[in-house]
Amino acid sequence: MTNPRHNTRDIFPPTGTELNAKSWLTEAPLRMLMNNLHPDVAENPHELVVYGGIGRAARTWKDFDLIVETLKNLEDTETLLVQSGKPVGVFRTHKDAPRVLIANSNLVPHWANWDHFNELDKKGLMMYGQMTAGSWIYIGAQGIVQGTYETFVEAARQHYGGSLKGKWILTGGLGGMGGAQPLAAVMAGACCLAVECDETRVDFRIRTRYCDEKTHDLDEALAMIERWTAAGEAKSVALIANAADVFPELLKRGAKPDIVTDQTSAHDPVHGYLPQGWSVAEWRARQETEPKVVEAAARKSMRTHVEAMVGFHDAGIPTLDYGNNIRQMALEEGLERAFSFPGFVPACIRPLFCRGVGPFRWVALSGDPEDIYKTDQKVKELIDDPHLHNWLDMARERIAFQGLPSRICWVGLGQRDKLGLAFNEMVRNGELKAPVVIGRDHLDSGSVASPNRETESMRDGSDAVSDWPLLNALLNTASGATWVSLHHGGGVGMGFSQHAGMVICCDGTEEADARIARVLWNDPATGVMRHADAGYDIAIDCAKEHNLNLPAIL
Amino acid sequence: MTNPRHNTRDIFPPTGTELNAKSWLTEAPLRMLMNNLHPDVAENPHELVVYGGIGRAARTWKDFDLIVETLKNLEDTETLLVQSGKPVGVFRTHKDAPRVLIANSNLVPHWANWDHFNELDKKGLMMYGQMTAGSWIYIGAQGIVQGTYETFVEAARQHYGGSLKGKWILTGGLGGMGGAQPLAAVMAGACCLAVECDETRVDFRIRTRYCDEKTHDLDEALAMIERWTAAGEAKSVALIANAADVFPELLKRGAKPDIVTDQTSAHDPVHGYLPQGWSVAEWRARQETEPKVVEAAARKSMRTHVEAMVGFHDAGIPTLDYGNNIRQMALEEGLERAFSFPGFVPACIRPLFCRGVGPFRWVALSGDPEDIYKTDQKVKELIDDPHLHNWLDMARERIAFQGLPSRICWVGLGQRDKLGLAFNEMVRNGELKAPVVIGRDHLDSGSVASPNRETESMRDGSDAVSDWPLLNALLNTASGATWVSLHHGGGVGMGFSQHAGMVICCDGTEEADARIARVLWNDPATGVMRHADAGYDIAIDCAKEHNLNLPAIL
Ligand SMILES: NC(=O)c1ccc[n+]([C@@H]2O[C@H](COP(=O)([O-])OP(=O)(O)OC[C@H]3O[C@@H](n4cnc5c(N)ncnc54)[C@H](O)[C@@H]3O)[C@@H](O)[C@H]2O)c1
Ligand SMILES: NC(=O)c1ccc[n+]([C@@H]2O[C@H](COP(=O)([O-])OP(=O)(O)OC[C@H]3O[C@@H](n4cnc5c(N)ncnc54)[C@H](O)[C@@H]3O)[C@@H](O)[C@H]2O)c1
Repeated sequence: MTNPRHNTRDIFPPTGTELNAKSWLTEAPLRMLMNNLHPDVAENPHELVVYGGIGRAARTWKDFDLIVETLKNLEDTETLLVQSGKPVGVFRTHKDAPRVLIANSNLVPHWANWDHFNELDKKGLMMYGQMTAGSWIYIGAQGIVQGTYETFVEAARQHYGGSLKGKWILTGGLGGMGGAQPLAAVMAGACCLAVECDETRVDFRIRTRYCDEKTHDLDEALAMIERWTAAGEAKSVALIANAADVFPELLKRGAKPDIVTDQTSAHDPVHGYLPQGWSVAEWRARQETEPKVVEAAARKSMRTHVEAMVGFHDAGIPTLDYGNNIRQMALEEGLERAFSFPGFVPACIRPLFCRGVGPFRWVALSGDPEDIYKTDQKVKELIDDPHLHNWLDMARERIAFQGLPSRICWVGLGQRDKLGLAFNEMVRNGELKAPVVIGRDHLDSGSVASPNRETESMRDGSDAVSDWPLLNALLNTASGATWVSLHHGGGVGMGFSQHAGMVICCDGTEEADARIARVLWNDPATGVMRHADAGYDIAIDCAKEHNLNLPAIL
Repeated sequence: MTNPRHNTRDIFPPTGTELNAKSWLTEAPLRMLMNNLHPDVAENPHELVVYGGIGRAARTWKDFDLIVETLKNLEDTETLLVQSGKPVGVFRTHKDAPRVLIANSNLVPHWANWDHFNELDKKGLMMYGQMTAGSWIYIGAQGIVQGTYETFVEAARQHYGGSLKGKWILTGGLGGMGGAQPLAAVMAGACCLAVECDETRVDFRIRTRYCDEKTHDLDEALAMIERWTAAGEAKSVALIANAADVFPELLKRGAKPDIVTDQTSAHDPVHGYLPQGWSVAEWRARQETEPKVVEAAARKSMRTHVEAMVGFHDAGIPTLDYGNNIRQMALEEGLERAFSFPGFVPACIRPLFCRGVGPFRWVALSGDPEDIYKTDQKVKELIDDPHLHNWLDMARERIAFQGLPSRICWVGLGQRDKLGLAFNEMVRNGELKAPVVIGRDHLDSGSVASPNRETESMRDGSDAVSDWPLLNALLNTASGATWVSLHHGGGVGMGFSQHAGMVICCDGTEEADARIARVLWNDPATGVMRHADAGYDIAIDCAKEHNLNLPAIL
């Protein structure tokens, strides 16, 4: 039997101004689905895997082909439903409705665990959507660079008087998201030692200029770090090794990194974390044949890994969980103090979320980098913020495009709609060669409930309340986003999160103006609302300042 | 401190043709919210409790007042968001978007249990929405009569050659939904012995003509049953007692009911099930002060109760779980054979779901029963089905209206939109005095994932996949329903279900025609799609017959 998830085709999104579908509102999801699987974007495109362990863009290759086919024929009063990566229905809606509605990996809570998911996944009944993999707005590691950068900058502010010069960051994992760490660290002025077990991933980061050096030898890596920090140079090295070996070893040796974190795919104990003592090849093979054995071994190693992180924390070194749920895994393995160091959201990001600030991103469907440079310029014109201008300059200089040219910048309520309308105007008046799409990560201000990550330690204790992301998805649908998605288990794994995505296409029309004004206002406003309801003053002030109508909150 | 959930006001919805809000699309949810709390409709309106244990219509009385206030002022391009019974935001949308979007009781799966819910509920951060309580389309016990009737008729077909004459049904619970059982049994030609511990509930059923007799004495109840069955008369008796005492006692005595089931609120072990040996007053008091003690005692009694049900099943008597998750509770209490008898959906209802047939309902906002009688007539004209005509005749004769006059009838894909358009025409041309709303239970063909109930034993094993109800809610939002809701834990309790509701207002306009045509087609079509995807031939045939466009399914 052939594997319906394997194929050797390379997928490249169409570029230019010619339509393959009946309108830009259907051409946009078509190009973005394909862009998610672009060889420079996806981690393992031949298996449909985009990033985040086994986060896929479509359930099988047949489903991929059918989605493409359906999008090509979809009318502007029809909506395609996608259920865990499978195109299950086309229904009549209206022009202001989304063209695609997506639900991925959702399970009734009592059954919402990896065992049950993997069983359904094996039977061909499910697909893991991660966050932006199954919702077609992944843009490669570039999508996460700024978030990681902002986190490091904030940590620097909190712990090192704002400067990371001569400091170094210890981390693990150089996958789709984790791969952004060395670059973000360097941009923030720090050195970085990143432990990654899979040399092919390391080579990908070196090839795309996200990481400077590589080595198999810990001593050599440390010598580089020592040299660079002494010289005040910000550079990065990837150490090809197992993080569960290296972290405890460094602790034992008394090494003193200035920040410690990790982005292995610990959220998925079968597919995401290499057990100690195993080769990568053995690990991959046994994921299929003996998932339970892999899981048990991986969990044990994670405990060791987190134990070392607790050790660094105890030694007074700022230590952060970077959203991969590794503390939960260690806790379940019996490490009682697993949660003694904080997650990165309460530690660094929540004040941004309170103002609806999050990872806003856009993509030039033309395929022409000039379109992005022009939008960069427009952002600078419209938003007078030196930190943001500096970010855009660095991004242009340092971040190589992957797949369709795109840009990310963290902006909030009142800024997103302004930028969206400006971009739409640029499409209309021909400044840009073709439409752009605007989207965001599911990790955002109003779109996610994830008690070990985005909603950890909420002020009122409402961490686990997932009414909020559901309302966010319903409201984006009602507001006219081009596609909307509802996922479960992204980032932190089955059982631990629910979240929503949205993308809107700026096709230059006036109808799009109206939709953009609604969607790009309402979407971050739900985040301000959610944080105001939880009692954060910054959010309450932001809501008042922007005249939000929040009946039982304000 | 005063209890924000307690009040002595009686709520009656406005009737007649005068608007309190700015349009019928906002007047409709206003009246329906109030109707849910009408003294003849709700089980405990002063505590905001509508039915199903603690299923509420609003989180607090303050929230109720704010919802009413907000609806009165809501524009036809605005949408109100309700989060677990609290009105949290008003956002700009457009005319074809829903006027209200609701998310109730949703929790991230790992935390989706009663303990965590009750903690949040106590803090004022949550509300249990059950199914139609928090989504404002509960219509009293009349809403469930036909479903229960259809189930008994189907059981009769399967086990007794189609007739229940001279037969009797043993059940428990005469609450908001369970109270329909004696009436449905009698309509189906059977006698009924219903065990209910709370005499006030029994009196409610007798007053509203849902039940014929009551007694505190088991022997007397059995004597009645014997007399009626012998005479071939269909009558019902409520026995005021604890079902966990009575079921085993009857089994011991060798009593031979012809069907056994139960509708106590076993889904909520703290608030829904009276432990053996406790008085109702003691139970209610200790729910507040010692919830854990109550829960442990209730679970123990449920086990005893289910043990007796398994005994009846073993004795060859058709025994059904009626959707209250009591088998799961007994299983968790160590009763390994708890699931040896089936749930009512796979046993009786699934073939209907395969054709999108489910509990369609509508309400005359005028308050005038004549409006319902006219729609009854219209249904008969449009749908030529003797079973349905018989149902409508019986309903008119036997079912007393509760609150705003309303009707339920089980119809499917291709019928619902036809009826909706006809009703809208009747509003337009003045045949009806005022608009009607059309809705349904969350228990329906395409709107729920609930592995111990609506999606038990799905053919392909996809019982726990909840992408489907989420897509249903998103599509109804995109299609222009007047309000849409997403709930967790209804019917079977925290952790065990996710489901969606929708209501659409027929205000007589042509815009409403377009919305009705979309919503009342798409909504049942998602049910046909979901069952076709699971491999049911009836659903596949139905999809083909109706030319559904299901890319990866057909
Ligand atoms: N904080 C955030 O904003 C954020 C964003 C996205 C993802 N994440 C989380 O970060 C994690 C990584 O995401 P990703 O997209 O990069 O995943 P990925 O699966 O693409 O990459 C994970 C990498 O970790 C490596 N790895 C696994 N076990 C290892 C071990 N024991 N030692 C060293 N390396 C090991 C793998 O080889 C792989 O390259 C996920 O859990 C994800 O959910 C966080
Ligand atoms: N199958 C369906 O279509 C369907 C529909 C709705 C509800 N349900 C389920 O049925 C159950 C009942 O729903 P409801 O709305 O009537 O709930 P309710 O809470 O209004 O009524 C439950 C009744 O059970 C009685 N009761 C509790 N413990 C008892 C005991 N030990 N012995 C005798 N009586 C006892 C209570 O006094 C109460 O009157 C719920 O679990 C609900 O989810 C099923």
